[in-house]
Amino acid sequence: MPLPYRFLTSLYVRVNGKALLIDSGEATQIAMKKAKLSASPIDVICFTHYHADHISGLPGLLLTMGNQERTDTLTMVGPKGLEKVVNSLRVIAPELPFDIEFHELSEDEEELSGVGLRIRAFKVHHNVTCYGYTMELERAGRFDAEKAKDLGIPLKAWNRLQHGETVEMEQKTYTPDMVMGPPRKGIKLSYVTDTRPTGSILENVRDSDLFICEGMYGDKEKAQKARQYRHMTMYEAAKLSGDAMAKETWLTHYSPSMAHPGEYIGAVRKINPNIIVAKDGQSTTLRFEEGG
Amino acid sequence: MPLPYRFLTSLYVRVNGKALLIDSGEATQIAMKKAKLSASPIDVICFTHYHADHISGLPGLLLTMGNQERTDTLTMVGPKGLEKVVNSLRVIAPELPFDIEFHELSEDEEELSGVGLRIRAFKVHHNVTCYGYTMELERAGRFDAEKAKDLGIPLKAWNRLQHGETVEMEQKTYTPDMVMGPPRKGIKLSYVTDTRPTGSILENVRDSDLFICEGMYGDKEKAQKARQYRHMTMYEAAKLSGDAMAKETWLTHYSPSMAHPGEYIGAVRKINPNIIVAKDGQSTTLRFEEGG
Repeated sequence: MPLPYRFLTSLYVRVNGKALLIDSGEATQIAMKKAKLSASPIDVICFTHYHADHISGLPGLLLTMGNQERTDTLTMVGPKGLEKVVNSLRVIAPELPFDIEFHELSEDEEELSGVGLRIRAFKVHHNVTCYGYTMELERAGRFDAEKAKDLGIPLKAWNRLQHGETVEMEQKTYTPDMVMGPPRKGIKLSYVTDTRPTGSILENVRDSDLFICEGMYGDKEKAQKARQYRHMTMYEAAKLSGDAMAKETWLTHYSPSMAHPGEYIGAVRKINPNIIVAKDGQSTTLRFEEGG
Repeated sequence: MPLPYRFLTSLYVRVNGKALLIDSGEATQIAMKKAKLSASPIDVICFTHYHADHISGLPGLLLTMGNQERTDTLTMVGPKGLEKVVNSLRVIAPELPFDIEFHELSEDEEELSGVGLRIRAFKVHHNVTCYGYTMELERAGRFDAEKAKDLGIPLKAWNRLQHGETVEMEQKTYTPDMVMGPPRKGIKLSYVTDTRPTGSILENVRDSDLFICEGMYGDKEKAQKARQYRHMTMYEAAKLSGDAMAKETWLTHYSPSMAHPGEYIGAVRKINPNIIVAKDGQSTTLRFEEGG
C-alpha cells in the first residue's frame, strides 16, 4: 500500500546509457520523477510477480513512455501470465508507438541478457509464483599490450580484440585469448522481495556487491505473520544476506504497519553489520574494483 | 501525467458520513492519505471517462478498500464500457470482499442518487465519451411549528413530517406539505474536466455553489492545442463559469507542460473574479445558507 512518504518498492538500474526497471507499482513513475530518472532509457522491465503493488503503475508508465515518443521495442520479463496481465491492464493504454516483447519465465532458474547485463531470474517462495533477479555486469580480462607486440598483432586489430572479437587481418587470425587476461571481477546486483528465505536465494545472490532484499517486518512478534504470508523479516534478510556474503545489503518493501523501519537497525546490524534500512529514493553507484 | 508536486485530478466529496469520489488516477489513494481522507466511507465512484489519468489508480484503491475489510457494495458510475474496463483492470485485484454495482451511462443526461446527493451526469465534448457531474444536496422547507400546533398535529409526528414522511396517527393522515414551507436552496457542486466548453455544461452547472473545472492551459498560445485535443483553457473556463453564475470556481487538470498555473490568475480574474487556481489538496466545506 503506497503511503505519502513511502511509495511502493521498485528498482531502477542504469547502465551505460540504458536502464532496467524491476516492478512498477502505483506511483513508480512519480518516484522516478522525484529522483530525476527518465523513463526513456528503460529497455527492460522485469516483474517479480503480479500483485498490484508491483505492477499497478505500469499502464501510466507505458503511456508516459509513449508520450516521450519511444519507438524502440520494450522487453518485459516475468512469471507465466505476463502477456495476459499486461494486455489486460492495457485496456487504458491500448495505443503505444512501440512494441512490447514478452519473455515469460517458466523454469525455476533462467538466464537472459538485457541492457548489457547478464540477468538471472530464480524462483522464490511466495504465495504466488514470484522470482528474484540477479544482474551481472561482466568485465573482460586485462589487455596485454606487451604480448600483442611480441605476437606482432597489428595495432588496428587491438581495439576489436579488446572487445572480444576475432580478427582476420593480413592472412592471419587473431583471437582475444591471445592477448586478454582472464575475466576480471564484474559487478553483481541482486533483488529479492516477497518471499521466505530459501536456499536458492542464498546460492543465487552469493557475493553480490549490492543485495536489495525485502525486510517486511522489524517487530519480532511479526515473525509468524511473515511465515504465514510468505514474507521475510528484517532479521531473516540480515541472516540470509550475511550468509550470502553480500558486500552491502539494503532492506526494502516494508509493511505499511511499520511506521519507522529505521528503529530496528541496531538489532539488525547485530546479525549483519553491512546492512542499510533503505528509504525512498535510496541510490548508489556501483563501480568496477580499482586495480582489478 | 502525475508530477511529484502535482498528482492527477480527482474529487473527494464527503457528505453526512458518506463519500463520493470522481475519478481515481494513479496515486489518488496517496493524495487521499496526504489529505487524511479515508477510502472506507466511499460508496460511489463516478468516472468522467477512461483515459488512464482518470482511472489508473482504481485497482490499488479497490485493494486498499478490501484491506479495510469493506463489505458494503460499491457503486460505480461512468460511460458505457465501465464494467469491461474495471474488470480488465481487476486482473491485479481479482478478489475483493465487497460487490461492485455498475451504472453505465447511456443517455446524454442522466439523473441518479447516491450518498444522499442528487447526481446528474451530462455528456461533455472530449475526444472520447466523457461526462461532467453535478451533485446537489437538497434542503427541505422550513417546518412551521405554529401551523402544526394550529392543525392539532401530535408532537410525536413532527419529526417524521420534517423528514418528508406521511404520518398516520389517531385515525388521521398528516402530510409534510401541511407543515413544511417550500424547499430551501440546497448546495450544488459541479465537476467538469476534459472537454471543450458547451451549452450543456453551461446549463447544467448554472448557479453552482462550487464549480470545479478544467483549466488545462494558461498560455494563450495553447488555445489551438486545447481545441485540437478537446480541452479547455483557463480563459474558456473563466468565461463559462462566469456565464453560469457559479458562486466560486476552481481550476484544475493542468497540463504537465504548465509549471506554474498560478501565474495566470491575474489574467483569468479579469474574466471571472470568483475563480481560484486550485492546488493539490485544495479543500473547502460547503454549508447551507444561513437563515435560508
